Amino acid sequence: MITVKRLDLADAGILLAGARAKASEIGVPMCIAITDEGGNLVAFERMDGGKVTSITIAIDKSFTASGAKKATHEYGTASQPGAPAYGIASAISGRLMVVGGGLPVIVDGDVVGGIGVSSGTPAQDIEVAEAGIAAFLAAQG
Amino acid sequence: MITVKRLDLADAGILLAGARAKASEIGVPMCIAITDEGGNLVAFERMDGGKVTSITIAIDKSFTASGAKKATHEYGTASQPGAPAYGIASAISGRLMVVGGGLPVIVDGDVVGGIGVSSGTPAQDIEVAEAGIAAFLAAQG
Amino acid sequence: MITVKRLDLADAGILLAGARAKASEIGVPMCIAITDEGGNLVAFERMDGGKVTSITIAIDKSFTASGAKKATHEYGTASQPGAPAYGIASAISGRLMVVGGGLPVIVDGDVVGGIGVSSGTPAQDIEVAEAGIAAFLAAQG
Amino acid sequence: MITVKRLDLADAGILLAGARAKASEIGVPMCIAITDEGGNLVAFERMDGGKVTSITIAIDKSFTASGAKKATHEYGTASQPGAPAYGIASAISGRLMVVGGGLPVIVDGDVVGGIGVSSGTPAQDIEVAEAGIAAFLAAQG
Repeated sequence: MITVKRLDLADAGILLAGARAKASEIGVPMCIAITDEGGNLVAFERMDGGKVTSITIAIDKSFTASGAKKATHEYGTASQPGAPAYGIASAISGRLMVVGGGLPVIVDGDVVGGIGVSSGTPAQDIEVAEAGIAAFLAAQG
Repeated sequence: MITVKRLDLADAGILLAGARAKASEIGVPMCIAITDEGGNLVAFERMDGGKVTSITIAIDKSFTASGAKKATHEYGTASQPGAPAYGIASAISGRLMVVGGGLPVIVDGDVVGGIGVSSGTPAQDIEVAEAGIAAFLAAQG
Repeated sequence: MITVKRLDLADAGILLAGARAKASEIGVPMCIAITDEGGNLVAFERMDGGKVTSITIAIDKSFTASGAKKATHEYGTASQPGAPAYGIASAISGRLMVVGGGLPVIVDGDVVGGIGVSSGTPAQDIEVAEAGIAAFLAAQG
Repeated sequence: MITVKRLDLADAGILLAGARAKASEIGVPMCIAITDEGGNLVAFERMDGGKVTSITIAIDKSFTASGAKKATHEYGTASQPGAPAYGIASAISGRLMVVGGGLPVIVDGDVVGGIGVSSGTPAQDIEVAEAGIAAFLAAQG
């Protein structure tokens, strides 16, 4: 058998709080999703004013980042016309997200979960996701 | 035009906390989802040990309760063989939940959102959802 | 963070072999699926003559058993007309299986994965799934 | 009536073993799927460390290659902007894969099945799929 580490709900709360603080700071209400390393949802928040369409997008960004162990914007680059992963965006019934805003959460080299953010520009979504991870890593001491 | 009242994220946090406290008290880690009056997800938590299958079920119970303005267990009764709503359980690609654990959140006679709980028995799920609503109503003063 | 134990591919191979041997013994070619504790597929085999419709059914039985930490036939009982979980069978886009043949794989009290079997009668499917688990547990020493 | 040749489970095992050996050699744990000429899954393995998102992708690459009798990377070329099959990637609810890693298995000019590999770069996925086919063809004597 394998032993794996994964985010728990307390960790998810720290990720959410860090992301939410950054979203408030930049003035963009966000949908924020946290998944475990198996891609399964642990926690979700839609801030007041967050987009309805972003609910699924945030969840799927987090699913992609944790399940594929890769930032979604890396897929964005790799899936441009002519690039090797062109066309991957519609995989898994469209759940495979190639738009920025999904990041794996990595501890000691292992992916333990993911965070997905949506409602702003992809650059804003990435910034907010990074803030969530920064808060989480800071709390690891 | 219409003005609607709906749960905000702060309200969702109160509903989650009330439900989580009851789940801890009865010793059943739960998936808990909060939707607004449009049936759209506002917040979600999978407590440590909550079932993976219950992620979607909790979200869909809340979707059903807020969207249909009815407790999911009412549909359970109405959808028995020979009853008027027989077969409704597979509607909306199976999102229409008829198992107990989804309750509308009602303020001054208006449905302002929903709560959906899953991982225990339907009776436990209902008990935890009710505790969430009780906490919310108490906070309304 | 949480540390979880889960089936690896070698474990899945033992589960498959145990189930396949029993299927051959009773003369019913089966579809056999193995999932980890997060409900994600680890291995699958359709024996020659196994049913095409059983591919998804076996996978979803295993998903249900591992994700809900419960045998699928328990849901069969609990979801009869008039019973508390009536209507659950169409949940998660129909992935929630209530037909026998899905069993959680349990080690030291923890669900570490699941096995799902389909192509025979539910009683045959359960017998084959149990044989897979027996082979796995015997190999744990 | 037509008589078709198709992979059996023993063949699938040879394909899997050949692919797995190459994946180990290049150090990339893969998801590997084998389908018959009808596009239906015969066998699947997720090597330890294979990506969760690659489960469906590997299965769909194999489905595409066997069902369309064409390597998925051929669709990648044909579906570029301005090319004749532009947009095909989202067909069949996104199951039509245009990313490399899916190959038809051909015997005496007939497609008898497919192999789909995912978790590495498309080039690595193709290399591993080719190794599976090479092992299969070698065993045909």
